[in-house]
Amino acid sequence: MKLSSKNLLGIKDLSREDIQLILSTASQFKEVLQRPVKKVPSLRDVTIVNLFYENSTRTRFSFELAERRLSADVLNFAAGTSSAAKGETLLDTVNNILSMKVDMVVMRHSATGAPHFLAQHIPAAIVNAGDGINEHPTQALLDAYSMQEKTGRLEGLKVAIIGDIMHSRVALSNIYLLTKMGAEITIAGPPTLIPKYLQEAFNVNVTYNVKEALQWCDVANVLRIQLERQNQPLFSSLREYNLAYGIKRSLLDSIDKDIVIMHPGPINRGVELDSDVADGPYSIILNQVENGVAVRMAVLYLLSPQSANS
Amino acid sequence: MKLSSKNLLGIKDLSREDIQLILSTASQFKEVLQRPVKKVPSLRDVTIVNLFYENSTRTRFSFELAERRLSADVLNFAAGTSSAAKGETLLDTVNNILSMKVDMVVMRHSATGAPHFLAQHIPAAIVNAGDGINEHPTQALLDAYSMQEKTGRLEGLKVAIIGDIMHSRVALSNIYLLTKMGAEITIAGPPTLIPKYLQEAFNVNVTYNVKEALQWCDVANVLRIQLERQNQPLFSSLREYNLAYGIKRSLLDSIDKDIVIMHPGPINRGVELDSDVADGPYSIILNQVENGVAVRMAVLYLLSPQSANS
Amino acid sequence: MKLSSKNLLGIKDLSREDIQLILSTASQFKEVLQRPVKKVPSLRDVTIVNLFYENSTRTRFSFELAERRLSADVLNFAAGTSSAAKGETLLDTVNNILSMKVDMVVMRHSATGAPHFLAQHIPAAIVNAGDGINEHPTQALLDAYSMQEKTGRLEGLKVAIIGDIMHSRVALSNIYLLTKMGAEITIAGPPTLIPKYLQEAFNVNVTYNVKEALQWCDVANVLRIQLERQNQPLFSSLREYNLAYGIKRSLLDSIDKDIVIMHPGPINRGVELDSDVADGPYSIILNQVENGVAVRMAVLYLLSPQSANS
Repeated sequence: MKLSSKNLLGIKDLSREDIQLILSTASQFKEVLQRPVKKVPSLRDVTIVNLFYENSTRTRFSFELAERRLSADVLNFAAGTSSAAKGETLLDTVNNILSMKVDMVVMRHSATGAPHFLAQHIPAAIVNAGDGINEHPTQALLDAYSMQEKTGRLEGLKVAIIGDIMHSRVALSNIYLLTKMGAEITIAGPPTLIPKYLQEAFNVNVTYNVKEALQWCDVANVLRIQLERQNQPLFSSLREYNLAYGIKRSLLDSIDKDIVIMHPGPINRGVELDSDVADGPYSIILNQVENGVAVRMAVLYLLSPQSANS
Repeated sequence: MKLSSKNLLGIKDLSREDIQLILSTASQFKEVLQRPVKKVPSLRDVTIVNLFYENSTRTRFSFELAERRLSADVLNFAAGTSSAAKGETLLDTVNNILSMKVDMVVMRHSATGAPHFLAQHIPAAIVNAGDGINEHPTQALLDAYSMQEKTGRLEGLKVAIIGDIMHSRVALSNIYLLTKMGAEITIAGPPTLIPKYLQEAFNVNVTYNVKEALQWCDVANVLRIQLERQNQPLFSSLREYNLAYGIKRSLLDSIDKDIVIMHPGPINRGVELDSDVADGPYSIILNQVENGVAVRMAVLYLLSPQSANS
Repeated sequence: MKLSSKNLLGIKDLSREDIQLILSTASQFKEVLQRPVKKVPSLRDVTIVNLFYENSTRTRFSFELAERRLSADVLNFAAGTSSAAKGETLLDTVNNILSMKVDMVVMRHSATGAPHFLAQHIPAAIVNAGDGINEHPTQALLDAYSMQEKTGRLEGLKVAIIGDIMHSRVALSNIYLLTKMGAEITIAGPPTLIPKYLQEAFNVNVTYNVKEALQWCDVANVLRIQLERQNQPLFSSLREYNLAYGIKRSLLDSIDKDIVIMHPGPINRGVELDSDVADGPYSIILNQVENGVAVRMAVLYLLSPQSANS
């Protein structure tokens, strides 16, 4: 079985079958990760470069671990110490790396569309690890994997996506994926952080009342307030945000059902999520992190030359 | 044989038997490091993360080399490029890393007690690679290994620790270790750099006269002046420090015996140590560096799941 | 077969036979790099440290990939996160690294002669990856390899080296190598960027007219304008430079022959080289990058203890 695309640029381009293939392959790799020997030889003799133009510990780490578990050769490239500082174009940098016979590129960039641009010009497989405020496809895949693992289904699942929707590539990738897989979506948060086009473009519900969203949903995917991506402050204080839109134990207790709590991390504790919720019994936040490695192993394996030959 | 603790947070927590076990295990690994093939499969399938919140070339290098010689999978995490910059808590960062199925954490942090805090909350083995001005246990272990290798004993050995005792985690870890192993200790340096509590807490001699300390000792462990950790200058100039407390050839020549010279590095040449002493016949400074890899291999091996099963 | 020196400090020290041995060994490694399995066990159990005091993506990457293809253990040391910041001397840093049983050092430094200084004091093999404005020997070797691969010869080949000769270690290493191998050389560029001593020291032609150089040559090696190494601006604008000395399609079209175009990268597009030339049919710029890995594998292999024993 193969993906319909040679790259993973966004969930937008994936078919329902592609997503199912990735999730079922991830399930096999997750079994491997429970064993004492967690390494498989699948990508032996494949060289992968992690090309991160934006800082990211958790995503880079998760990809690097996935690559090593697959026995790939890994090279890390961080923009700070690179030719980027000498004014080289993105395409020149990547062409140079590929001339050295690198097989796959995992790429994060602050510009929307940077991996799509590259994909038109280079033959190697590209995995988008986040581009601007566009997509973060492996995050949406690991979120879906974690939802399915916890609740047994995606079809018909009621998912609330809560918080800073406007600046979130996680939100957009989740909406693409959940829509394709037949889940129902409500987006909730401050009016200033919910873009109007979403309601028109997708079949999603919108509310500015977080409690309403929680009363409706099975799963709440709470997003990080992306302070670093806001050009101007959109609410007067983090404390104000927490009071109006933060998820608190008392708020959850006022609702008579168990809601699965998710967050892509890193958490602003006491802002979008209180600690007793983040660490509470219905939180699957650390499962998301664990599943991230398995999902990335699946994506890398399915896009590798090895898979194409098998 | 096993250590009595699942972590190495400080020498303070180790028993005399723990220390002897580490030193004898290090001795076996040092033999391995003399062979053409220096790699052993002991930690195959163990993943170790080096979590350095403070810069350190030599310690990080030494640990990384030890980990690779043991065939572990190694991931490096430097705070500058991390979620720490996004305001994530230390515990969240580490829990995330562990959710990705990392087995051991080697950690350096500028806050005293950071690894102890983590140890109460996470199951993985933690090795303290230096926490604030508290402890630097692997440095004390490699110092002890080097003293024993050179002089044949620790029991009854007369060790002078000279210089900036106040800001030195190396000094504190050395004092814990040498006291436990029955060595005698004199601490020497400027009055402003020797904390009063040490004399009361430990059975150590104190002198502000370096020549007196040298006349008494078998081994002089000369510490680095930690200029970067002093909030205010404690002596008017480095030149003044060198004149009053620096170790010079002429000073050693005025004493009629051979004193083993040690330094944890990096050396401020011409400040705490003159070059003809640092590079002289009784210096074991580079042996300390060499032994550091063997001692760290021993610590990592003894704390690993592999050792627990053996 | 062995090199006549235990280090590669500069092309200046190599014999014609040394250069031929490196190029023919590189040719064998290039064959390996065309295979699906690109890894050879040649340097298994050899530990190499990449000691980069100056930032460099492409060179560090190329060396690291070469080292991994040879199955060496690789440690990266970047000056920014190092003891260099704590005032340690270069010799102390390197002695420390070597005490940890490292076999080879690949070194870049902004000071001319830094690797030569080290070579007088340490036993490990040193490969100069660029020292100040002195030499960059592996670049000259990969340039020569690429010229020979494209044109079939070095003897009698007419090579124009164009641009900022003054600040270029690439130019100097190329001149040493091409002279030894019997190529003819013309250097061309602005009078302010061509040092007078070159004409006297080497049997090279000099012209300030780029078109004249192009009309004469078989191969044009176009150098990067090293803006970051110029203490004062030597021409009033990059646009002015491009008009007078940049290589343009129209300029090449006005000459009735095919000239091989080379550039060490990173390219300042629109300054020393226009895009339609850099990406044109006679450009071998990406071949240079590809050959760089093979040439560096050859150098590392020939200087390794493994080669000495074979």
